[in-house]
Amino acid sequence: MSTKVLLSTHPEPVDPADAKISVFDRGFLYGDSVYETMRTAGGWPLELDRHLRRLRRSGDGIGLTIPFSDEHLADAVARTHAASGNDESYVRLVVTRGSGPVAIDPRHGEHPLMVVLVKPLELPAAEEYVHGISAVIVGITKNAGTSLDPTIKSGNYLNNILALRQAIAQGGQDAIMCSPEGAVSEGATSNVFMVAGGQLETPHLRTGLLPGITRQAIFDLAEALGLSVGETRMSPDHLRSAQEVFLTSSVRGIMPVTQLDGVVVGTGEAGPLTVRLQAAYRDYVERAARSSPLRER
Amino acid sequence: MSTKVLLSTHPEPVDPADAKISVFDRGFLYGDSVYETMRTAGGWPLELDRHLRRLRRSGDGIGLTIPFSDEHLADAVARTHAASGNDESYVRLVVTRGSGPVAIDPRHGEHPLMVVLVKPLELPAAEEYVHGISAVIVGITKNAGTSLDPTIKSGNYLNNILALRQAIAQGGQDAIMCSPEGAVSEGATSNVFMVAGGQLETPHLRTGLLPGITRQAIFDLAEALGLSVGETRMSPDHLRSAQEVFLTSSVRGIMPVTQLDGVVVGTGEAGPLTVRLQAAYRDYVERAARSSPLRER
Repeated sequence: MSTKVLLSTHPEPVDPADAKISVFDRGFLYGDSVYETMRTAGGWPLELDRHLRRLRRSGDGIGLTIPFSDEHLADAVARTHAASGNDESYVRLVVTRGSGPVAIDPRHGEHPLMVVLVKPLELPAAEEYVHGISAVIVGITKNAGTSLDPTIKSGNYLNNILALRQAIAQGGQDAIMCSPEGAVSEGATSNVFMVAGGQLETPHLRTGLLPGITRQAIFDLAEALGLSVGETRMSPDHLRSAQEVFLTSSVRGIMPVTQLDGVVVGTGEAGPLTVRLQAAYRDYVERAARSSPLRER
Repeated sequence: MSTKVLLSTHPEPVDPADAKISVFDRGFLYGDSVYETMRTAGGWPLELDRHLRRLRRSGDGIGLTIPFSDEHLADAVARTHAASGNDESYVRLVVTRGSGPVAIDPRHGEHPLMVVLVKPLELPAAEEYVHGISAVIVGITKNAGTSLDPTIKSGNYLNNILALRQAIAQGGQDAIMCSPEGAVSEGATSNVFMVAGGQLETPHLRTGLLPGITRQAIFDLAEALGLSVGETRMSPDHLRSAQEVFLTSSVRGIMPVTQLDGVVVGTGEAGPLTVRLQAAYRDYVERAARSSPLRER
């Protein structure tokens, strides 16, 4: 097991100590980059197609046309994972606007840089998926759509870092952010779901949030279980009244929130709907692993 | 004349081709960094003390305690400038939260990285300071203080890059942004001043904007000329009604805006108050150059 990095400026994956980029890269100077975070299942990135689609959409949102084909990106990720020797990997795929003179004009970034960063997939212990985590609804609000569209996954991540920092300062393990208008938006690295009166709810995309790949998977899994998910304008008080709360992300999957703003949620353990969805999500990851292109003969 | 880079991980300034940082640096991964842009005058960074004070304030704003002393930072900049052989330099001083595991928790960045980037100072031609530039009041709004405090100069610069991109798409050379509440805030890399009825005005800090070092210098220079500067809540329409508009920044100094949203401002050349301030600013830079510590014997 190891960490490996592939740069588009270099033919082969390298060790972390050799994984360096220019200080003139706009990803470093301005956070002028887009990225995706994935996990592999059976050695292949889970929902790779959806992630690549979103990566291009993020690029479009900041006027960065990604010059690498889907096949090239998929091959880059697969080769880096293979070089790592990991059973399963955490994958971060970054595309920056490239280097240029030190000036903010985005026309200066002519040659986008691709970075694939792969490390062993380390998931929380099984008990944590039962006991859950504590979260805090923080005062830091999600970027407004008119400032930096929150549907873009960019290298400008201070907004969510400051949210997490505030949550930690208030004794929580994770942060839940609201929109400038005061509706629940997203977690620091996740989407938010809740259960009230047996009904699953998640903030509507109109609230301003990252359209999570796992958020979408939950919609599909819930439907297969005969459940519906309501996309709503979710007030903080409504979230605090939930019987169940969970966060979804591509790496951690479904993580229950069992303490919110210092108050126990439901029974203090993953609730019944959360548990059903966690089981369905495990099956979904296992199905993906079994149908991984790497397992085809 | 040359471009040189000093990294806190390396004892001496290096050439651009050797100026590399780890892809695990949080400055690259998340834009988790603060910085200052300066110019030298007589080989010494103009208003260095004020820049270093603001750098630390920016660090405090994101919970990044800068472990380098003012003396260390000043020496780093001076050594890099000396190695460049430039008469005068453009200087970018960056401090990142350093490297760590790939996870947004800011507690992971234990060893901040300093980067000093020096290149020859290239100012616009003298005519451009007379003829001015065209600017557009864009729809992209400045980050709200509750999302990412606009008084922090951080490596999350997409907000202003997107503003500049919008201005260019609309045929302008520079962008003027408004606050989420609709008041004029700042330029893409500058502060905004206007003259109406013989009175100098600039948006109040309460609007949400970067407290520019040159903005402060203009206050001092105006006072010495017997002029006062009103800090106001400036509406876009009020700005459009100005007889004179100019942008201030540490590198360019005072740049007239002679076309705003496609309409000629005043006479279409630097107005009388702008010209007086430009002369006072030139004197101020020359005085600083003459009293540069490098010129002391």
